[in-house]
Amino acid sequence: MATKQTTQPIILITNDDGITAPGIRNLIEAVKGLGKLVVVAPDKPQSGMGHAITIGQPLRMNKVELFGDVEAWQTTGTPVDCVKLAVDKVLHRKPDLCLSGINHGANHSINIIYSGTMSAAMEASIESIPSIGFSLLDYRYEADFTAATFYANKIIKTVLTNKLDKHLLLNVNFPSLPMNEIKGIRVCKQAYAKYVEDFDERLDPQGKKYYWLTGEFVNFDKSKETDVWALQNKYVSVVPVQFDLTNYALKAQLEKKKLFK
Amino acid sequence: MATKQTTQPIILITNDDGITAPGIRNLIEAVKGLGKLVVVAPDKPQSGMGHAITIGQPLRMNKVELFGDVEAWQTTGTPVDCVKLAVDKVLHRKPDLCLSGINHGANHSINIIYSGTMSAAMEASIESIPSIGFSLLDYRYEADFTAATFYANKIIKTVLTNKLDKHLLLNVNFPSLPMNEIKGIRVCKQAYAKYVEDFDERLDPQGKKYYWLTGEFVNFDKSKETDVWALQNKYVSVVPVQFDLTNYALKAQLEKKKLFK
Repeated sequence: MATKQTTQPIILITNDDGITAPGIRNLIEAVKGLGKLVVVAPDKPQSGMGHAITIGQPLRMNKVELFGDVEAWQTTGTPVDCVKLAVDKVLHRKPDLCLSGINHGANHSINIIYSGTMSAAMEASIESIPSIGFSLLDYRYEADFTAATFYANKIIKTVLTNKLDKHLLLNVNFPSLPMNEIKGIRVCKQAYAKYVEDFDERLDPQGKKYYWLTGEFVNFDKSKETDVWALQNKYVSVVPVQFDLTNYALKAQLEKKKLFK
Repeated sequence: MATKQTTQPIILITNDDGITAPGIRNLIEAVKGLGKLVVVAPDKPQSGMGHAITIGQPLRMNKVELFGDVEAWQTTGTPVDCVKLAVDKVLHRKPDLCLSGINHGANHSINIIYSGTMSAAMEASIESIPSIGFSLLDYRYEADFTAATFYANKIIKTVLTNKLDKHLLLNVNFPSLPMNEIKGIRVCKQAYAKYVEDFDERLDPQGKKYYWLTGEFVNFDKSKETDVWALQNKYVSVVPVQFDLTNYALKAQLEKKKLFK
């Protein structure tokens, strides 16, 4: 007769703001006691890295003591590299859960595409590791993570105690509000929103042009089902995400029209 | 009475292998005569950059004469930066079509997630610019693009002459075969395949460890509907792609179970 397994789950933690960002420290606080934690995170900020991987140069990885008795490693790689290194060289197995964040700044709507935080989580999901990315709608280093930490703990417990999907991937965003103003959690779809871009054109001391990316965020999606709506209405947003990017509706349309032969 | 517009379409061309790669030159050949071409591409290889954008440092952009009378600009940015710069600072409008590639190496199945080629195309699609990414299953600089160029021309003509979707986004991969061995074009879904990763651990002259990413590609998806199947069976694969990553099936399941409140 098989004995019931009572070993605690192994939880991998990473981020894209770098291992010294307050967000990852708050995520560790949120998850303490829920499993054996191992941190593998970039040694510097990697925001906006999307799903970048390092293929043209080698990676470094060093053990660091930053989080008391929690095992932690910093790497020279991207968030996606961190997940790959963690599985192959640190854990030598797949963790039971991968958590990424808590990001300083929003990753709702289209931001998911550019987000290193969510790409790390997606990398884990591709590897059949249930995974969650967390982001707080406050870019500042001194952001208040109190409510974010509370709700992250709640969501992680729910995921650990319910068998969901081996590719489970959630994009969680927290409004920048005190605990008592948050109305709860809403499961949402990704809003169709984008940045209306503008480059700030400047001249260097030699008179040559250079460009800074700037842009205004615009939500084109007025549905109440979206993450943007939920956050504006003081809810924590949870978007279930997939890595199959096939547009099946368009596929059916193209096949019906027999356009490509 | 409005007169019929006869102006030719504006076609933006970019890639992730860099502006000097043979693949982009072959894409320009494939599309010559089909519109006014403008090239905005990275000044160095950017493979594996995913949907990275440059936010921590400024960008440079310089006009270059590489393709005869075709206007061309090289930038210090990522493929996604190139699309943004092209719209805002070169064209001062949206092009009618965006083409990315021809990539040296496969971007079928899960590779789409890591691909700078496909991220540039996706960026255009988010901006409501119909867009196609092209990749040849041959990594070599001296790869033979004859068949790829022929089929790229055919697919681009089809897209230009049929009103499809303003967010149209196609991931096109060419088998590395001579013309007479290619059986035609197939509309496919993205295969569930991944890299079984392994890092090559080495010691530097100081005796410190460093890691090279390596990995073996494994296809777990045995369906005949996939891009991997099509390519293995000597077809050009066309996967219609979307940027809404919401997993609607999982969303419905989570809502039904009322797990998050």
